[in-house]
Amino acid sequence: MRRRLKDLFRDCMLSAMALLTLCNFAYAQSDPLPSWNNTAPKKAIIEFVKKATETGSPDFVPPAKRIAAFDNDGTLWSEQPIYFQALFVMDRIKQLAPQHPEWNNKEPFASVLKGDIKGAFAGGERALLEMAMVTHAETTTDEFNKIVTDWIATAKHPKTGRLYTEMVFQPMLELLDYLRAEGFKTFIVSGGGIEFMRSWTEHVYGIPPEQVIGSSIKTKYELRDGKPLINRLPELNFINDKAGKPVGINQHIGRRPIMAFGNSDGDFQMLEWTTAGDGLRFGLLVHHTDDQREWAYDRDSHIGRLDRGLDEGPYRGWIIVNMKDDWKVIYPFEKK
Amino acid sequence: MRRRLKDLFRDCMLSAMALLTLCNFAYAQSDPLPSWNNTAPKKAIIEFVKKATETGSPDFVPPAKRIAAFDNDGTLWSEQPIYFQALFVMDRIKQLAPQHPEWNNKEPFASVLKGDIKGAFAGGERALLEMAMVTHAETTTDEFNKIVTDWIATAKHPKTGRLYTEMVFQPMLELLDYLRAEGFKTFIVSGGGIEFMRSWTEHVYGIPPEQVIGSSIKTKYELRDGKPLINRLPELNFINDKAGKPVGINQHIGRRPIMAFGNSDGDFQMLEWTTAGDGLRFGLLVHHTDDQREWAYDRDSHIGRLDRGLDEGPYRGWIIVNMKDDWKVIYPFEKK
Repeated sequence: MRRRLKDLFRDCMLSAMALLTLCNFAYAQSDPLPSWNNTAPKKAIIEFVKKATETGSPDFVPPAKRIAAFDNDGTLWSEQPIYFQALFVMDRIKQLAPQHPEWNNKEPFASVLKGDIKGAFAGGERALLEMAMVTHAETTTDEFNKIVTDWIATAKHPKTGRLYTEMVFQPMLELLDYLRAEGFKTFIVSGGGIEFMRSWTEHVYGIPPEQVIGSSIKTKYELRDGKPLINRLPELNFINDKAGKPVGINQHIGRRPIMAFGNSDGDFQMLEWTTAGDGLRFGLLVHHTDDQREWAYDRDSHIGRLDRGLDEGPYRGWIIVNMKDDWKVIYPFEKK
Repeated sequence: MRRRLKDLFRDCMLSAMALLTLCNFAYAQSDPLPSWNNTAPKKAIIEFVKKATETGSPDFVPPAKRIAAFDNDGTLWSEQPIYFQALFVMDRIKQLAPQHPEWNNKEPFASVLKGDIKGAFAGGERALLEMAMVTHAETTTDEFNKIVTDWIATAKHPKTGRLYTEMVFQPMLELLDYLRAEGFKTFIVSGGGIEFMRSWTEHVYGIPPEQVIGSSIKTKYELRDGKPLINRLPELNFINDKAGKPVGINQHIGRRPIMAFGNSDGDFQMLEWTTAGDGLRFGLLVHHTDDQREWAYDRDSHIGRLDRGLDEGPYRGWIIVNMKDDWKVIYPFEKK
């Protein structure tokens, strides 16, 4: 009896798979990247995916190895006038200020409370770290998740007045969907805070928390009133930037991606590591060139500086996306 | 035209999904756990999975939240007379010995070279750490992967004479398959070395590297002769054991599992953290009770000590598997 049911199951699955192949064919006839102009980057992406996925292709990559890594800030969403997580930090400091009267006379907090972004970040990495610890640590993981979830649902961007999650790049959303439909597993590999991103990446990008890699602080498991929790400590654990990105990828994925997408020199090593592997490889940098619909910046920017990538990228076979010319639409709300 | 193709795609997918539901029904009629006796643990597992997955169930868990965490040593494969990774360490020391004549007069290496397991591990954690660093660090990730892959393909267990990958538990292999067929994502959460396990978990357990969490040493991205590599440093990064397991889970998965499987007090906090969450929860401990087919040990064992879990597990609603009575078959080779 068990044997016959197993046969039935097998036949059933074979029929379903045949049908799925047919569906896939129908899907393949439609344009998977409608917000990309028909310029070189779109052609390169589609050609690469075909080579990697078509049965019988000499460059065929088995689904388990179809790993695609995406930077977040400046690659999947905007990052001006400063990283959105830094704007979260500033909002959070304002929220916590009543409990810290001493902040009125202490930098970088005093600048934050005056709404002076430039002054707040004038102290460089040390000031940023101090602010990050005050706003990111000394909470449980559940509490922090709630704080971020509430903020991201309501906070507005200082220039556009939009929710931050509205300022994601429509062409990249399409690319994520397209790659997943072709059997790729999509990961975020960002210098941003891992738990900050995980609070919203699933509903915004369709990327579950276990596929988000980022910078982190140390945490500790403990019992409070008999109830277990994970406490966030004011101590750095890992900076997932520059040469840290291949390390973070190795720690979390344990396998070299075959595609990597970034926008700044902080992504250089991730693209270098990804494209130095054997077989089919793909690297792409988003160049911010559209000061009308988004921002234009590169070599001299204090945020998302892109200099070495612009010089060496083309020689390394990396695709450079010119946002102004290659993207029909930048943000999803432009489609209406 | 694009609209019509999208409709075709949608209709096609709906038909495929209906057919898959039918297949699933056929599958449900067959026994997903044939190597488990029809005792309490098997019934509890199947009842839990039904509650979590059946449409309309008041306890329904959406697929994205169906996270199941498995310890490895003693839960998915055997761990006597000592962790298999410790036997790898000993074999590796023997292999490296010609380059280290000083080891003949230096503990713990001298004991290892005499084949004296007890003496080798008499120095406790410090000796273990010293041996682990010598055998696990100062290689690139690619080199280390090759060393482990070669070892696991050929090394034999000192008592059974079997390959270590033959000493995995058949009932747990079936459980992994069953859970994945029901939309669960299966993770390994082990005190063992993350890169040691990743070399073979995919073909043995069907668990890809990105779903393996373990202890680790620090690594560094660098260029050697212009070629990028990741170097393994002789410095501890993280111990994924006891209270470290919920921390490792949070770091890698970013979401609390709904099922956790272990066999020792090193898994206590993982089960505690997993089963303290809201909604449907499942914890299971494998109790090694079969000294004929495997080993029998618990409260007084130097490896895989199970004491607190045996006392508190039942009160916490955790299932205790009695290997002797609950498992028809222990190892896959018994089936023949």
